[in-house]
Amino acid sequence: TLTSFGVFLLQMGWGDLGAFGEPSKETPNLDQMAAEGMLFLDFYTASPLCSPSRAALLTGRLPVRNGFYTTNGHARNAYTPQDVVGGIPDSELLLPELLKKAGYTTKIIGKWHLGHQPQFHPLRHGFDEWLGSPNCHFGPYDSRERPNIPLYRDWEMIGRYYEDFKIDLKTGEANLTQLYLQEALDFISKQQASQQPFFLYWAIDATHAPVYASKQFLGTSQRGLYGDAVREIDDSVGKILKHLQQLGISENTFVFFTSDNGAALISAPKQGGSNGPFLCGKQTTFEGGMREPAIAWWPGHIPAGGVSHQLGNVMDLFSTSLSLAGLQPPSDRQIDGIDLLPVILQGKLIDRPIFYYRGNELMAVRAGLYKAHYWTWSNSWEEHSKGIDFCPGQSVAGVTTHTQEEHTYLPLLFHLGRDPGEKYPLSFASEEYQQAMENISGLVQQHKATLVPGQPQLNVCDQAVMNWSPPGCEKLGKCLKAPESDPKKCSWPH
Amino acid sequence: TLTSFGVFLLQMGWGDLGAFGEPSKETPNLDQMAAEGMLFLDFYTASPLCSPSRAALLTGRLPVRNGFYTTNGHARNAYTPQDVVGGIPDSELLLPELLKKAGYTTKIIGKWHLGHQPQFHPLRHGFDEWLGSPNCHFGPYDSRERPNIPLYRDWEMIGRYYEDFKIDLKTGEANLTQLYLQEALDFISKQQASQQPFFLYWAIDATHAPVYASKQFLGTSQRGLYGDAVREIDDSVGKILKHLQQLGISENTFVFFTSDNGAALISAPKQGGSNGPFLCGKQTTFEGGMREPAIAWWPGHIPAGGVSHQLGNVMDLFSTSLSLAGLQPPSDRQIDGIDLLPVILQGKLIDRPIFYYRGNELMAVRAGLYKAHYWTWSNSWEEHSKGIDFCPGQSVAGVTTHTQEEHTYLPLLFHLGRDPGEKYPLSFASEEYQQAMENISGLVQQHKATLVPGQPQLNVCDQAVMNWSPPGCEKLGKCLKAPESDPKKCSWPH
Repeated sequence: TLTSFGVFLLQMGWGDLGAFGEPSKETPNLDQMAAEGMLFLDFYTASPLCSPSRAALLTGRLPVRNGFYTTNGHARNAYTPQDVVGGIPDSELLLPELLKKAGYTTKIIGKWHLGHQPQFHPLRHGFDEWLGSPNCHFGPYDSRERPNIPLYRDWEMIGRYYEDFKIDLKTGEANLTQLYLQEALDFISKQQASQQPFFLYWAIDATHAPVYASKQFLGTSQRGLYGDAVREIDDSVGKILKHLQQLGISENTFVFFTSDNGAALISAPKQGGSNGPFLCGKQTTFEGGMREPAIAWWPGHIPAGGVSHQLGNVMDLFSTSLSLAGLQPPSDRQIDGIDLLPVILQGKLIDRPIFYYRGNELMAVRAGLYKAHYWTWSNSWEEHSKGIDFCPGQSVAGVTTHTQEEHTYLPLLFHLGRDPGEKYPLSFASEEYQQAMENISGLVQQHKATLVPGQPQLNVCDQAVMNWSPPGCEKLGKCLKAPESDPKKCSWPH
Repeated sequence: TLTSFGVFLLQMGWGDLGAFGEPSKETPNLDQMAAEGMLFLDFYTASPLCSPSRAALLTGRLPVRNGFYTTNGHARNAYTPQDVVGGIPDSELLLPELLKKAGYTTKIIGKWHLGHQPQFHPLRHGFDEWLGSPNCHFGPYDSRERPNIPLYRDWEMIGRYYEDFKIDLKTGEANLTQLYLQEALDFISKQQASQQPFFLYWAIDATHAPVYASKQFLGTSQRGLYGDAVREIDDSVGKILKHLQQLGISENTFVFFTSDNGAALISAPKQGGSNGPFLCGKQTTFEGGMREPAIAWWPGHIPAGGVSHQLGNVMDLFSTSLSLAGLQPPSDRQIDGIDLLPVILQGKLIDRPIFYYRGNELMAVRAGLYKAHYWTWSNSWEEHSKGIDFCPGQSVAGVTTHTQEEHTYLPLLFHLGRDPGEKYPLSFASEEYQQAMENISGLVQQHKATLVPGQPQLNVCDQAVMNWSPPGCEKLGKCLKAPESDPKKCSWPH
C-alpha cells in the first residue's frame, strides 16, 4: 500500500515550541509529536520568507532556480502580494503533480502563495482540491484601491477575507483555523473510507500577521494573541494526528511539521514568535530567519524520541515524499532536496551544505557546523530609522549590518555548535578558519558553476492583476472592476 | 522513614539543557530527569552570581539579609575570592545545621564559596563531610603573590588545584568531575548501607571558567569545551540518579537540579553557556542572569512529565527540604524561601514575587508575568570598552544600560509571557502598566518596610587571609607564609 503524506507548514519560529525551549511550554501536542517521532535540530527553509520557501518545498528546488525571486535590486526579498504578475512557471514540476500520476489524491488547505492569476491556480499544478487563499490574509481593503483576498474552494472563490470570512483585528478573533482543521479531518476521513493514498498540504497562516485565533483559544496563552494562535495550531495538529490514529492509518501516513521562515520579529511580541537562541528573524539569512522547527512522525516506522542533527531543508520534503511513493525525482533538472529516509529510518547523517539565499544573492553557506557569510544585511538604515527592525534587541557589530556588506573575499565564519547565535566570528588567521573555508569555498564554487537561474517571477507588479474578479465571483455577486493594466517594477525595499 | 535530599548546583544557563531548547541537545540524562520529574520554567536564583546565591540557597534568605553583599559601591556584585575577609555569619542557620539535628548525615561536594577563613568552614556550619574547595578553581598562582586554591577533605586540605589536582588550561582536561562523581556515589552507598537519611549538596564547578572536562569527554560535544563539561555533568547526574534507583532508595530521595546564576556570557562561547531566549547573563538582573534551569525528581511522588510555571527560587530549597524532613523553618528571622511541596506534589501555584538584587540594591521585581525594573545596569562604559560584555550581541535601548539608570518613579515594565527577552517595555500610559505597577508597588513597599539588611560580609579584602596555610598543610608540606595583614575595601567594579 502507498504511504500517504501530510505536511504542516506554518509561519512559526524555531523557539516557538516547548520542545525547542519556548519558556511557556504551551505546545503539548507538537511536543508529543516530537516525542513519538524525530526532532530535527538543524532544519532549514529555502528562503527567509514565505512565497519562495513554499515554491521551494513543492518543487524541491531553490527559489533562484524555480523563479521565485527578483532581480529588481540586489539581494532583495520578494513574495506574492496580489499585484504581483508572476507565479509558479508551468515548466516547474510540483510534488502533487508527480504524486497524482502515482495515484495520490492531493489537497492544499491554506495559503497557496505561488501566484494568483489563473495560470498559477493550484489545481492547474497538481492539486485535486483546495480550501484557502492565494495570498496572505492582509486587509481589510476598500474594494476600490484594492480588493479583499478571496478564499477558494477548488476552482472557484467562495468569499473574501473580512467580508465573508471574518477576522476581527481588534480582538484577534477568527475561526479560520477551525475551518481548516475540519477540512483536513474530513479530507482524511474520505480518503481512508475509499482506501485512497493522499497528499495533504496543510499550509495555514494563523501565526502570520494579522495573527488570529478562535474564540475558545483567545486569552488562553501566557504569550498573548500570538500564543493563542500557536495553541490553536498545536491543538489542531494534535487532533489531526489523533484522527489518523483513530482511523487506523497512522502507520501508513508520513507526517512532517515545519515552517516557511523564522519568526517575524518585526511583528513581535504581539504578532510574532520566537527564534529561541538564534540571531534575527524572518527576512534575514541569519539563523533566526531560516532555521526552523521540524518534526517527522510516522508511528511504527520512525523510532520514538529520535533527535537528528542532519542538515535538512524544506526542499527535502519533495525528494523524501517521492522516495516514499516509490517515484524518482525528475532527471531533467537540478533538484536541491535530498531523500531524508535514510536519516529518518536508519539514523544516518548525509553530508550536504545549506545555501542561504536572499533574492538573487547567495548570502551564506553552512557546511557541518560552520556557516560562512558572503554578504551580510539586516535592512537599510532608512527602514531601520522608521522602526522596521528584523533583529530587535540584537546587534552584532559587522554582522547585523544596515548596509549590504560584501565579504566574498574573506567571509565571516561562525561555528554554530559553540556559537548558535552568530555572535563570535572566527579569527581569519586561525587554522580552523582556513580549514573550514577551504571546504566551503569548494562547495560554493561547485554550486555557482552549475547554477542556472530561472526566469525571475517577482519583478513585475500590476494593479490590474489583483483579485478583482476571481473565478466564481459572478455567482456570489463579488466581482469587482479591475483598473487598467499598468505594469511596473515591484518595489522590494529589503 | 526520612526522605533524603540531593541538590545539584551548577553554573549553567537556562538554555544549556536539551529540555530547555539548547540546539545541540546533548543532555540526555538531564532531559530524562525532567521527563521523569517536574520541569520548572520560572525558577530563579537569589543573585546573579555565585557566592550570594549559594549563601541564599543554604540559608533560605536573600543575600541582603544573610550578609552576602557589599556596600562598597551601589548595586555591586560581590563574591568570595580568597582575599575576602568575610563569610557566612555564625548567626545564620544553614540547611545542613537544621537537618543534622533531625538525624541527617550531610555532605558538600564541590565549591563551598561561603568564606574560607576557619570560622566559615562548612563543617562548622552543619556539614558532616566535605570534598571540595572553598573558592573558585582560578589559577594557577605563583604561591608568592597568591596561593593556589586548596582542596579539602573534611577538616583538612588534601592538596591544591594545579599542583596536586591538575587542570590543564591548554586542553581543558581535568578529572575533577569524575572525582566528585565517585565521591557522591560512595557517600550515597554508605548512607544506604547504614539506612541513614542524608543531605548531599553536589555543588560542582566544571562549567565555571576555567571550564574543564575529563579526557573521555573532551571533544565529544558540538559545543566545544563548554559542551564537553556539560556532557560530563549530564553523564554524572545520570549515574547518580541511576545509583539511587539501583540501591532502591530513589523513592526516598528528593533530588533537585538547578544553577547559582545564569550562563557567564562574558566567557562565551568557549567557556560560557547559553541563556536561551533571555536577555544578558551572569552579573545582571535581566532574565539571563537569574532565571535558571530547574528540575525536581522524586520517583513515585512527583508525577512524571510535569511542567510548572510556579515562580521558584533557590531559597525555596531550604524551606522545601525542611518541610520534607518534618521540620519548621526558624521563626526568629525572615525566611524568603517557600515550601514548594504543594507545587511539586499537587500542582498548586503559590502567588509570590521574585526580588532581583544586585548587591545592596533591589534592581527589579517579578510578580506573575510582569517584571518591573527599578534600576537598570549591565556594566560601565569603562569596562565595556575593555571588552567586558555581559550581553554580547544584545542591546536594548534604555534597558541594557552602561550607566546605572534609576527608574524608581516610573519603572520599566515587561510582560515576560509575550516578551521573555525583555525587549519591549510597556507603555507607561497603558492601563496594563497602571494595573501591574499598582500590584508590584505594593509588594515592593511591603518588602522594603520590613527589610533588615544583614551586616555586609563582602566589603573587606586582605591578602593575609588567603589560603596560605589551610589546616592540614603541615602534613603535606604545603604551608605558605602569609604576608602582613593589610585590610582594604574590596574593589567591585560591576
